Amino acid sequence: MKTTVKQRTVLAARAPGFGDLLPGAAAVRRALEDRMLHTFRAWGYELLETPAVELLSTLELGVGPERLRRLFKFSDGDGRMLAMVGERTVPVARLAAGQLRQAALPLRLCYLGPTFEGHPAPGSGRQAFQAGAELIGAHGAAADAEVVAMAITALEACGLGEFQVEVGHVGFFGGLMARLAPDQRARVLDALTGRDLVELEQALAETNLRAAEQELLLRFPALRGDPEILTAAVNLVDNPASELAVNELQEVHRLLEAHGVAARVNLDLGAVRDFDYYTGIIFEAYGPDVGRPVAQGGRYDGLLARFGRSAPATGFVVQLDLVWEMLTRAARPPALPRIDAAVAWSGSGLKTALRLGSTLRLFGMRAVVDTQARDPVESKKWWRTVGAVNLIHCRTTSAVSWTARGHRTLRLPPEQVAGRLAGGIA
Amino acid sequence: MKTTVKQRTVLAARAPGFGDLLPGAAAVRRALEDRMLHTFRAWGYELLETPAVELLSTLELGVGPERLRRLFKFSDGDGRMLAMVGERTVPVARLAAGQLRQAALPLRLCYLGPTFEGHPAPGSGRQAFQAGAELIGAHGAAADAEVVAMAITALEACGLGEFQVEVGHVGFFGGLMARLAPDQRARVLDALTGRDLVELEQALAETNLRAAEQELLLRFPALRGDPEILTAAVNLVDNPASELAVNELQEVHRLLEAHGVAARVNLDLGAVRDFDYYTGIIFEAYGPDVGRPVAQGGRYDGLLARFGRSAPATGFVVQLDLVWEMLTRAARPPALPRIDAAVAWSGSGLKTALRLGSTLRLFGMRAVVDTQARDPVESKKWWRTVGAVNLIHCRTTSAVSWTARGHRTLRLPPEQVAGRLAGGIA
Repeated sequence: MKTTVKQRTVLAARAPGFGDLLPGAAAVRRALEDRMLHTFRAWGYELLETPAVELLSTLELGVGPERLRRLFKFSDGDGRMLAMVGERTVPVARLAAGQLRQAALPLRLCYLGPTFEGHPAPGSGRQAFQAGAELIGAHGAAADAEVVAMAITALEACGLGEFQVEVGHVGFFGGLMARLAPDQRARVLDALTGRDLVELEQALAETNLRAAEQELLLRFPALRGDPEILTAAVNLVDNPASELAVNELQEVHRLLEAHGVAARVNLDLGAVRDFDYYTGIIFEAYGPDVGRPVAQGGRYDGLLARFGRSAPATGFVVQLDLVWEMLTRAARPPALPRIDAAVAWSGSGLKTALRLGSTLRLFGMRAVVDTQARDPVESKKWWRTVGAVNLIHCRTTSAVSWTARGHRTLRLPPEQVAGRLAGGIA
Repeated sequence: MKTTVKQRTVLAARAPGFGDLLPGAAAVRRALEDRMLHTFRAWGYELLETPAVELLSTLELGVGPERLRRLFKFSDGDGRMLAMVGERTVPVARLAAGQLRQAALPLRLCYLGPTFEGHPAPGSGRQAFQAGAELIGAHGAAADAEVVAMAITALEACGLGEFQVEVGHVGFFGGLMARLAPDQRARVLDALTGRDLVELEQALAETNLRAAEQELLLRFPALRGDPEILTAAVNLVDNPASELAVNELQEVHRLLEAHGVAARVNLDLGAVRDFDYYTGIIFEAYGPDVGRPVAQGGRYDGLLARFGRSAPATGFVVQLDLVWEMLTRAARPPALPRIDAAVAWSGSGLKTALRLGSTLRLFGMRAVVDTQARDPVESKKWWRTVGAVNLIHCRTTSAVSWTARGHRTLRLPPEQVAGRLAGGIA
């Protein structure tokens, strides 16, 4: 017998890396989705939905080898390789360049949905939930600032208090690297992402970079802060791409001030992302004590062309699971709607109970009608397990008793219940 | 060149059987989810979420071989076989018997989420979207009637006008089959589901069923209608299981009248389902001109025990894609919120435009701020592509012009815009 039970427990397990959201948690996640979506809509973004599964060949057009390696991949049985999506910027680009090809630019699009990785980064699960927005067809600082400002507004709408957004530009680093041979570039990049300063110094010594630029790269991880760092940095670089990056960052920062969100923003000239499609302004939002970004995004002007419709684009994604984690860690997690009435019955009271349940729901209340007859004592026990604010007990078609938490039981005609409860609840 | 473009189109395709929801459609689907969820909550059901992927061994505990065959299955790379879920009743049972083992019964649980089939039935896609509810731990007609009534209420809340619910009971057919040998039973079932009356007659002739029962089975597909068919049927059967089924159907129908939903209900004694876990009352909702059920459910008292917690249960699932299809075919598809204001700018007007956008959103309006400068003529063209109700053009920090559809342009100070628009919209 013992073996059978044990076997059952193992058989009925969740798949490793996949989690459930229990009652309460699932409702909070749904509320976060709603707040996110409310913000996106207020800014004029239209919801769309792409599927959880794409052709591997479609994802290969936008996702780099390292991220592709992490995905769940399988055959569809007809000789095509499919993959579960790990992000939705690439599928949205497919859609904007495909079925939405005739739609006038700029397009403001947003999405909500699960994402999957078979071999996720340490500390992450195999299924996540992302909300994102893409502004497709708009060049320039106003577009870049719009998505950063909207990301900040959406995170604030979720109730997140403490978070900061690091705004950088891939062109600053890219400009410094442009005059290096590919192998030199790879060596410098490895040393930088590995934070190996000794190796970085040696790698730089073999390049033809000016001393000021070498010094700048050695200080790279520390190139964060207020707009003053831009003034300092522009004097140390001597290439058009890096200078353009600094100017764009300056302009975006000025607009983020006009949006009223600059207090959340740090500039980060040392940002080096492993993402494959970014071409301009990039940003990441971080909460306190969380190693992974809760939101990230940036400009990706080359991606749409890979799907046959050349267009600039910028956007971001929010990790809603991480928002939820940060909120539950915070002092005041979001409140959930209670059940307003537990409707019990005995004798001939079931029909009265069913009608009362309907009426209370029409009044906007949450009402549970018992599925079995119980006497008054048993119905009070049941009331507690339901966790409702009020208990209504129906014994006949003409009289019911009402007990509110902390109050004495009252007898009243069924037709008075909804009004009395609505009054008591309001 | 031509080859490259062609190749690109093929590469950037959607995976076969997987669809996108475009702007508009996705918003309607989300609104349907909200109405579904609102109904479930009003009846005291708590939202939970199970993952899109489960261990194949977990699904095998509840899903029969034919449905398992249709699923996407793949290895997780660590030697475990996974499957994308094709329904969520089995995962909810896993959860109710697992992490929620300590929660008092009855449990009222609901869910929303995508489901997947690699080899779907003809006419269905590979990804669907289901909403469902499960009442776990309650015996009896009150529980059965609750889920049928809630399913009807939820479909009505979605705006569905024309639909009917067929309510049957697996025990009626089961009782007739109980005294047959397994091979006879299989032959009768095949003939019935294949609607082969000649074969059915031959198969029945070789059984020891009474003539009245044989006649009943030959009329099986026609055993639908009002409660009167129950009275007729109970005289033709001579086994306790079929009689119990008729009595339970009678009691459930009486309660559906008390719930006020009996006008939607047909009784269907001839219901023979291919589902693997139903043990009592079963039901299916059908719209006009739709071959597949838009909702289906029933009692499954044996499923939870397979996960180690013996408990009766009943529930249902709604195919939200099908609800959406039926609504878009109907005369009045659901209305979508418009964009209230397109905020254009030129000269020094960008900061004013950004601030106006924020203010309008605080007033609950949807506002798009342009990402590039445009003169008044160009901004009117842009306004039309945005499809907004109002156009605001900001040229300086102190004066803006406002054009409402079908009205002349007015100049006014920026601080008056939100109030005027809110007034005009209300």
